[in-house]
Amino acid sequence: MTRAIDLNSDLGEGYGAWKMGDDAAMLGIVSSANVACGFHAGDPLTILATLREAAARGVAIGAHVSYPDRVGFGRRPMDVTSAELTADVIYQIGALQGLCAAAGTRVTYVKPHGALYNTIAGDARQAAAVIEGIQAIDPTLVLMGLAGAPILAQAREAGLSTVAEAFADRAYTPAGTLVSRREAGAVLHDPELIAARMLRLATEGVIEAVDGSTLHLQADSICVHGDSPGAVAISARIREVLVAGGVAIRPFAQVAA
Amino acid sequence: MTRAIDLNSDLGEGYGAWKMGDDAAMLGIVSSANVACGFHAGDPLTILATLREAAARGVAIGAHVSYPDRVGFGRRPMDVTSAELTADVIYQIGALQGLCAAAGTRVTYVKPHGALYNTIAGDARQAAAVIEGIQAIDPTLVLMGLAGAPILAQAREAGLSTVAEAFADRAYTPAGTLVSRREAGAVLHDPELIAARMLRLATEGVIEAVDGSTLHLQADSICVHGDSPGAVAISARIREVLVAGGVAIRPFAQVAA
Amino acid sequence: MTRAIDLNSDLGEGYGAWKMGDDAAMLGIVSSANVACGFHAGDPLTILATLREAAARGVAIGAHVSYPDRVGFGRRPMDVTSAELTADVIYQIGALQGLCAAAGTRVTYVKPHGALYNTIAGDARQAAAVIEGIQAIDPTLVLMGLAGAPILAQAREAGLSTVAEAFADRAYTPAGTLVSRREAGAVLHDPELIAARMLRLATEGVIEAVDGSTLHLQADSICVHGDSPGAVAISARIREVLVAGGVAIRPFAQVAA
Amino acid sequence: MTRAIDLNSDLGEGYGAWKMGDDAAMLGIVSSANVACGFHAGDPLTILATLREAAARGVAIGAHVSYPDRVGFGRRPMDVTSAELTADVIYQIGALQGLCAAAGTRVTYVKPHGALYNTIAGDARQAAAVIEGIQAIDPTLVLMGLAGAPILAQAREAGLSTVAEAFADRAYTPAGTLVSRREAGAVLHDPELIAARMLRLATEGVIEAVDGSTLHLQADSICVHGDSPGAVAISARIREVLVAGGVAIRPFAQVAA
Repeated sequence: MTRAIDLNSDLGEGYGAWKMGDDAAMLGIVSSANVACGFHAGDPLTILATLREAAARGVAIGAHVSYPDRVGFGRRPMDVTSAELTADVIYQIGALQGLCAAAGTRVTYVKPHGALYNTIAGDARQAAAVIEGIQAIDPTLVLMGLAGAPILAQAREAGLSTVAEAFADRAYTPAGTLVSRREAGAVLHDPELIAARMLRLATEGVIEAVDGSTLHLQADSICVHGDSPGAVAISARIREVLVAGGVAIRPFAQVAA
Repeated sequence: MTRAIDLNSDLGEGYGAWKMGDDAAMLGIVSSANVACGFHAGDPLTILATLREAAARGVAIGAHVSYPDRVGFGRRPMDVTSAELTADVIYQIGALQGLCAAAGTRVTYVKPHGALYNTIAGDARQAAAVIEGIQAIDPTLVLMGLAGAPILAQAREAGLSTVAEAFADRAYTPAGTLVSRREAGAVLHDPELIAARMLRLATEGVIEAVDGSTLHLQADSICVHGDSPGAVAISARIREVLVAGGVAIRPFAQVAA
Repeated sequence: MTRAIDLNSDLGEGYGAWKMGDDAAMLGIVSSANVACGFHAGDPLTILATLREAAARGVAIGAHVSYPDRVGFGRRPMDVTSAELTADVIYQIGALQGLCAAAGTRVTYVKPHGALYNTIAGDARQAAAVIEGIQAIDPTLVLMGLAGAPILAQAREAGLSTVAEAFADRAYTPAGTLVSRREAGAVLHDPELIAARMLRLATEGVIEAVDGSTLHLQADSICVHGDSPGAVAISARIREVLVAGGVAIRPFAQVAA
Repeated sequence: MTRAIDLNSDLGEGYGAWKMGDDAAMLGIVSSANVACGFHAGDPLTILATLREAAARGVAIGAHVSYPDRVGFGRRPMDVTSAELTADVIYQIGALQGLCAAAGTRVTYVKPHGALYNTIAGDARQAAAVIEGIQAIDPTLVLMGLAGAPILAQAREAGLSTVAEAFADRAYTPAGTLVSRREAGAVLHDPELIAARMLRLATEGVIEAVDGSTLHLQADSICVHGDSPGAVAISARIREVLVAGGVAIRPFAQVAA
C-alpha cells in the first residue's frame, strides 16, 4: 500500500486588478485548492481562471468560505447571526459550484477561511451555522478543519464527512493546538525543518511539539502557503521531501480510499 | 385547450436592513420570480427567504443577474469586458442555484436586470457574453428577454431556449419596441386599462400601440411590478382579469407545454 | 434662564434605491442629526440631500461613524485593529465634512453607530481608537455617548468634549445602564409615558428605573427614532410635551451655552 | 529663473491585504501624488500611510477620484447621473481631506482616475458634474487634466484653476492627443527615450509626435507610473535626466509661481 497525503493551499485570492500569491506555481505543488468565493477575496473572473488551471491539473477544489469582509480579508472576527452565516455559506458555495461547472470541475469540500476558520474551531453556535449551510446545499461536501478541533466531531455528529489538516509552518503545543502567533516561534521558516516534520507526520503520524514532546496527530491534509516567493519555495520543498520519502501527494478523498 | 400565460416580477430585492417591495404579496400573484443574485440587490439571507416562499407556492425561479453596481441598483450602463461579464453571470447564477438547492427549488431561467437587460437587448457583444455565461453553467437554462429584441434570436442561434416577455405597464411603438420613458405616456397607470390590454395580449396575441395601431406581439410571459402598493394592486388586477377571462397563470415552461 | 435639551436621531440611512426612515419628518422634530457616513448606510447623494435639508432647518450635524459592514447595517461586532478603526473613523468624518461643506453646514459632533457604539461604551481599546481618530481630524468635535458610559470619561481625559445622551424609548436599570433588549420591557412603546419620562428627565434630571427607583441621569441630548411611522409619531409627541413643558429643543452646544 | 516641472503619479492604490505599486519609492521621485480615495482603490489605513509618507517628503496631494467600481479598478465607463457623480466627487475629496488633516497635509488638486478621467476629457455633462463637485467642496482646488482636453477650458470657464499634464510613456498624435492603446507604439518603454522626450518637453515645450512632427504641448506636470519595478525605474530615470538638465522637480503650484 502506498502512503499518501493531501497538500492544500489558499488560492484564487486576487481581486480585480490586485494579485495575490502565485496560483500557477502552487497548482503544480498542491493536490487541493481552497478557492476564494468572493467574500474575503476573489472576483468571478479571477476565480474562474484559477479553477480552469486547477481542473487542467487535476487539483481538487474546496470552497474557501469567509465572513463578508473584503477590506479585512476575512481576518476579523464578526459576530454574525446563525441565519446570516448559514445563508452566506450557501451563497458562496453555490457561486463556486457555478464557476466550477463552467471550468469543468466541481467543489468537493469546504474549508472556512481566516477568522471564520478560527472562530468555528471552538464556537459551537457559528460552527453549527456553517454545518447547516453545507448540509443545505450539498450534504456530500466534506468539511476541512484543524486536526483536533471540536468542530470536526460536531460536523460528523451532524452527518458530514470531515478531513483534518495540519499546518506545515506552525509550531504545536503538547496538547495538539497551534502555538499562538503572538508567541515567539509560532511560525516556522526553515524549509528543511518544515519538510522533515511533514514527512514524519505523513509516515509516522507524529509531530514534535514545541516542548520537544512527541505528539500524535491524525491529519489527511497539510496546509501550505503560496502568498510569497519564500512560501512557494517552502511548499515546493515539502512536496519534494514527501515524494522522495515515498509519500504520494493526492487529494484527500483519494488518500482515504 | 386552456389558454395560459406566465406572470413574472422582480423579487428578493431587499438588502440587509433595507426592504424593497412586498415579496409575499407578489408571490401570490406571479408564476415566475426574477430573483436578485446579490449584485444589484439581495443579500443571501433575504434571497433565501424569498426562495423558500416561492418554493412553497410553486413559483418558478429565474436568476436576475446584473452588473456589479449595488449603489446604482444595476441601473447604470457599464462598459464591462466580455470575460468579466461572462464570469459575473456564472457567479450569480451559481449563487442562486446554491440558495435554491437549500430552499428546495431550482433556477429554470435567467432574466438580466436593469441596465444589463437594456444593453444586451441590442448590444451583440455584451449579449454574447451573457449567453456564454449561461451556457457555461447550464445550457438548459432559458433566457428571458424583451419580445422582439435581437438578443432572443442571437441566443437561439447559440443554442439556448428563450422566452419573450411583454411589459404590462408600458406603451409600445407601432414597431413593437417600448416607448422611451423620457416620452409622455410611456408608463401606464390605469389598472383596468392595463389588465384589459394584457387579457387581449394573452388571448389574441395583439396589443394596441401608442398610435392606435394593432401590434402583433408574441409573448409567453408578462412582466408586472411589486415595488409599491399601487404596483402590487395593478399586478393583482391583471391576474384577476386574466383568470376571469379564461387565461391560466402558470410558469412559462408549462405555458409552452 | 430657559430650560433646553437636544433631540438627536439617526438620519441619512437610505442607500441608493433603498429608503429608510422619514428624514424630512424627523428634521422637523430633532435639533441634531446623526448622519450616516457610508459605512453602514448612506450613499453620497442620499447623505447630501439629508444634509441640505438639515442645513435649511438649522439642525446640527453629527458624524454617525460605523464599522465597515453595510449588509449588516453596522450592527455586528467586529474585532478590528486599532489602526484600522482610527483610519476608518477619520475617513468617514472627512467624507461627511466634505458633503457638509457642499450643503452649507458643518460636522459638530461624532456619534458612533450600532455595534461600534455599544462596543466602545466599555471596550477601552476600541474607544481609544475612535478618540484618536476624532482628535486626528478635528479635536474640537464633540463625542456623543451613552450617559454614564466609561468612554465619555476616557474621551474627556484625552481632551475631547463630550455630550451624554439618554434613550427615550429604553428602560433603565437602577445602576443607570440600559435594560438589555433580550429582557422583557427593555423597549418602551407608549408615547405618553415616554414623553412624560423625557420631560421629567429634562426638567428634573431624573428618570424612573425599571425597579421603580429614581435615577439621576445627566443627559444633554435625547435619542429618538424615525425608522417607522410609529417611531416618528413618538418622537413628535416627545417634542410636543417637552415644548409644552417649557423645555426648548436646540442643539446640545447651545444647551450647554 | 529656474526651469521647473511637476511629476505626478497614482499612489495609495493598495486595498486591505492587497498591495499595488511601490509608494515609498515613488514618493522619492514625484512632487505630486494622486491618492486613491476608496472608490477604485485605497482603504483608509492604506491611504493614511501613503499620506503620512507624502507629507514627510513634501509631496503635494491630489484627490484621485473615481467611479464607484472597486472590482473594475475604476477602469470601466459608467453612465452615472450628474447628481450621483457630483456627490461621489465631494464624498471622495472630503474623505481624503480628512485623512490629510490627520497626516498633517492637505489636498491641493483633483485628478479624476481611469475611466472617469477619460470620459470627462470630452463628455461635457460628466465634466460639469465633476467641476460642480469640486466647486461645492472647495473652489480653490485645482483640476488636473490632459493637456489640450476640452474639460480644462470648461473648468476654467466655471472658475476653477487647472493644470495640464503630459504622459511620459505615451505616444502623441500630431493633433496633440494620445495615440490609442489599441494601436502599436502607443506606449513607450525605453527609459532613455522617454526621459529625453520629457526633458525636451520641460525645456522647450515640445514633444515629437508619432509621425515625427514637432508638437507644442503646454504641460505643467508629467504623469509617471510606479505600478511595476520597471515603471519605477523609468520614473526614476526621468527625474534624473530632468534634474541633470537643469529642470527642478516641484509641485505644479510652485512651478507656476
